[in-house]
Amino acid sequence: MAVNRQWLLKERPKGVIGQEHFEYGETEIAEIADGEVLVRNLCLSFDPTQRGWVNDMESYMPPVGIGEVMRASSVGQVVESKNEDFKIGDMVQGLGGWQDYFVASPSSMIPINKLPQGVTPELALGVLGITGLTAYFGLLDLADPKEGDTVLVSGAAGATGSVAGQIAKLKGCRVIGIAGGPEKCAWLTEEAGFDAAIDYKNDNVEAKIREHCPQGINIYFDNVGGEILQAALNNLAMNARVILCGGISSYNEEIPPPGPNNLMNLIGTRSRMEGFIIIDYMDRMAEFHAEMGQWLQEGKIIHLEDIQEGFENIPTTLQRLFTGQNMGKQLLKISEPG
Amino acid sequence: MAVNRQWLLKERPKGVIGQEHFEYGETEIAEIADGEVLVRNLCLSFDPTQRGWVNDMESYMPPVGIGEVMRASSVGQVVESKNEDFKIGDMVQGLGGWQDYFVASPSSMIPINKLPQGVTPELALGVLGITGLTAYFGLLDLADPKEGDTVLVSGAAGATGSVAGQIAKLKGCRVIGIAGGPEKCAWLTEEAGFDAAIDYKNDNVEAKIREHCPQGINIYFDNVGGEILQAALNNLAMNARVILCGGISSYNEEIPPPGPNNLMNLIGTRSRMEGFIIIDYMDRMAEFHAEMGQWLQEGKIIHLEDIQEGFENIPTTLQRLFTGQNMGKQLLKISEPG
Repeated sequence: MAVNRQWLLKERPKGVIGQEHFEYGETEIAEIADGEVLVRNLCLSFDPTQRGWVNDMESYMPPVGIGEVMRASSVGQVVESKNEDFKIGDMVQGLGGWQDYFVASPSSMIPINKLPQGVTPELALGVLGITGLTAYFGLLDLADPKEGDTVLVSGAAGATGSVAGQIAKLKGCRVIGIAGGPEKCAWLTEEAGFDAAIDYKNDNVEAKIREHCPQGINIYFDNVGGEILQAALNNLAMNARVILCGGISSYNEEIPPPGPNNLMNLIGTRSRMEGFIIIDYMDRMAEFHAEMGQWLQEGKIIHLEDIQEGFENIPTTLQRLFTGQNMGKQLLKISEPG
Repeated sequence: MAVNRQWLLKERPKGVIGQEHFEYGETEIAEIADGEVLVRNLCLSFDPTQRGWVNDMESYMPPVGIGEVMRASSVGQVVESKNEDFKIGDMVQGLGGWQDYFVASPSSMIPINKLPQGVTPELALGVLGITGLTAYFGLLDLADPKEGDTVLVSGAAGATGSVAGQIAKLKGCRVIGIAGGPEKCAWLTEEAGFDAAIDYKNDNVEAKIREHCPQGINIYFDNVGGEILQAALNNLAMNARVILCGGISSYNEEIPPPGPNNLMNLIGTRSRMEGFIIIDYMDRMAEFHAEMGQWLQEGKIIHLEDIQEGFENIPTTLQRLFTGQNMGKQLLKISEPG
């Protein structure tokens, strides 16, 4: 029988996460019990939230244990089934982890055949998956965008930010994206339809925010935290909504850096800052699939995937998120569908 | 004719505000035009927000200009009237400022005879005035307290905090107050009905929060900001509401200190942080007066006033707010009703 290659958590990173925190291993492929299926991973998703999963801290999920397979979202194909609802060849999405094969119970999988037609593993992990879901409900449910609102998005060339910004455009907003480097900024304005882009690596971010948001920011969709959050808080319009989706700027800091020194601006502008975790919206997946599926079909939302290959490159691919190398959704293909 | 004593803003404080930033002056009493009234101040209100009014920065009100009378809420009595809706002897509340007499137009005054019976100038500036209004709508409108919620209040022995905490008790919440020193803490638990008090001058605040809020904080009503805000953010329950009412810990800092390093907790706990300015609720004063008036009559809300005297003591009385000397509403009586 084939081996099951795995990447296991070797030690908890204190700062920047890297290959040295993981250990390669091989095991036999597990037996499945009645009701379960065996899934072969096709494609792994890389998400900033994975950095939190390896900290020794209870969060919205328990931490990955030392010696355990690294947790990751994935799309895979059923290769063995003891469940009548799943047959060999079916595509599913779940928390497959950094390994070739995983055993899944029906409740832990989303069957991909329920997605809109023509969906690929890449789409199911990106714009039609958790990433798109995050952008969709984070923006629409928490920020309530109105026509004419000025929307600022950080991490705008990333998987979530790029979709959040485009949804805001579909809702009639003016959208400004913040991203690192001229290539990403050009993609935002020339391809993704953003009204303006700010290059945080080369621009004075706060001056550019003032320039592009002269009436202030109505919605700030934040993926990065840190100094950019502080700059945004200095430029809020009245009754602004600051959506905390993530704070990638400090995920690798051993000691969390100080926060923005201007939270009092939330008082003067009567504004709201709110955080969310997308797992609370899993039961509204169908609602999201219906609308996003249509937008994709009509070409109203574009998406980028950064697809790496090679099982040996899994740990370094995670790093790409934190060095800003990826553009769009970071994925790694393990194998082709059978 | 009597002179009009005044305290004028002499220079903008860079750090701690004090007597040296104000200048005593005397002028003639102004003439009133048709439709206006002349009001003699009886009692001045001292509020942390006044510190912001002397900064050279547009906020929810323009800054007080150098050489201008210091802005302050007050209750006074009409001594001359060219407006048929106001007669001599009427009590009104308005932004009378640090002076004996001010000229008012009807739109800038709240007639006190519309308040519940038995109201005094002290009540009209405190628990039945802007202070009470702030506690009432900040808590009820923004935080939506539910029976059984754990509510943490900072600045809890202050004018707003003490009322916010008591309203939370009336709504069936467990209420923990943070205040400075054993005297204030004893007042909170023995007089004001708080379930527990934390003495930030002598306790380890975060350890005490953990002890008194073992299930986490559902509502944090914040008047102080700074380290106490950070400690609170480390102990949020799911879907917590953090109400930013004020941030007195940094009002006198020339350079705003860094903010909490744990805003990401808003994400993990799906929580909301929201600021407000009470002037947005002025049109709902009647609604507030009805309910608060009844609570006072029934003895369900108690209140403390710290009443100073002497026109010459006005500037140093403002300082009492920032040194934590006051307990309850800080007032200064200028004259007796005629």
